[in-house]
Amino acid sequence: RLVLDLADALAAKGLLSGLRVLISAGPTREPIDPVRFIGNRSSGKMGYALAAAARNAGADVTLVSGPVALDAPAGVETVRVETAAEMHAAVMARTGGVDIYIGTAAVADYTPARVADAKIKKHGEQLELTLHRTPDILQAVAALPDKPFIVGFAAETGEVETYARAKLEAKGADLVAANEVGSGAPGGFERDENALFVCWRGGECHLPLADKTEIARRLIRLIAERYYADNTDQDP
Amino acid sequence: RLVLDLADALAAKGLLSGLRVLISAGPTREPIDPVRFIGNRSSGKMGYALAAAARNAGADVTLVSGPVALDAPAGVETVRVETAAEMHAAVMARTGGVDIYIGTAAVADYTPARVADAKIKKHGEQLELTLHRTPDILQAVAALPDKPFIVGFAAETGEVETYARAKLEAKGADLVAANEVGSGAPGGFERDENALFVCWRGGECHLPLADKTEIARRLIRLIAERYYADNTDQDP
Repeated sequence: RLVLDLADALAAKGLLSGLRVLISAGPTREPIDPVRFIGNRSSGKMGYALAAAARNAGADVTLVSGPVALDAPAGVETVRVETAAEMHAAVMARTGGVDIYIGTAAVADYTPARVADAKIKKHGEQLELTLHRTPDILQAVAALPDKPFIVGFAAETGEVETYARAKLEAKGADLVAANEVGSGAPGGFERDENALFVCWRGGECHLPLADKTEIARRLIRLIAERYYADNTDQDP
Repeated sequence: RLVLDLADALAAKGLLSGLRVLISAGPTREPIDPVRFIGNRSSGKMGYALAAAARNAGADVTLVSGPVALDAPAGVETVRVETAAEMHAAVMARTGGVDIYIGTAAVADYTPARVADAKIKKHGEQLELTLHRTPDILQAVAALPDKPFIVGFAAETGEVETYARAKLEAKGADLVAANEVGSGAPGGFERDENALFVCWRGGECHLPLADKTEIARRLIRLIAERYYADNTDQDP
């Protein structure tokens, strides 16, 4: 409650004015052949809602989006990509001068080692697919010499708080938001609502289940508060 | 041209009246874990257009659809499924009394041997995925004692006519429609237009590039002609 009260004290409009915010959103698709791919259930709604909320807070927003069924938010520069490699390249090319990076995209961790040029024909009862790790975008942004304030997302199917804390440390993020996904979870992938556990070095907070637009507005206020706490001399 | 002229001679309205048509459409999604899946680029547009065209021709139409971003066609009983196994079960449960089966769905040929209950965590640079064959729906329908007239679709990235003829023989289909998909092809997956090569025992024809609604109308006329040719004593 304390952090939300503090954020309330700031005017919502212009909270991020003069700041450049870069957001990744949606799933990636990793081609197996020209027809088949490995995808994931990210709808992109959370990232698009955050882009709109950051724009409403006065930021100059760029959105790098995987394949989703959503319209680009008005007033937000939107770049469409498909694979994890394309998303990595598109994000890294746009980090210059960025103050806040928010990685909401559900980027594939693994991609097929070889992509078949022609559709793979059926042979035999079993098929072995060899996958290689993809570059970690959050870590790559965190390793930049003049790194922005970094917000990571964790989509977990259990032990949400443990994974979120681990991600904060492992990835060099400044804030991590985590939600439960998968069957039985109240919000997350393919839903219009979400509930978040948010943590940073020295604090944490719960944003209870709400419409993704409202959750995005609250999270942007929290991000702004933590950003200014890290970038001013005063104690938070 | 001859077959289209013959079809033209039949009234478009009521061409399939009194007949039951079962159509499968869209992709399937094979879960790897609660978040990731193997999918394919089928939009479902061709199958949905065929369902509307068959309904317009007077048929009683049932559509079994994988996950697509399309509304159910008015007046068509639409059943939504996700995996190849679900599509197989939903189709087989609805074959009773069916006169024409049209399999347009891009059903996954292979599905992960094991589905993880929780999201798979990143470990190591490489991941091996073992996939098993899924049941062949077209062959299962063709093996029914009182089998309907069977229309198969072939989505190929080359040698379209060879694969279409091979599918006709291998699957026990009565008619196969094939289109080129993948980069560089003029129509097919994720497009609004399509061009088809259509073959049956003793004949073939090309339906040139057109809007999927128009291609569907022409294909339904061709299917009706071949259906009556096979189900009456007169020579075609």
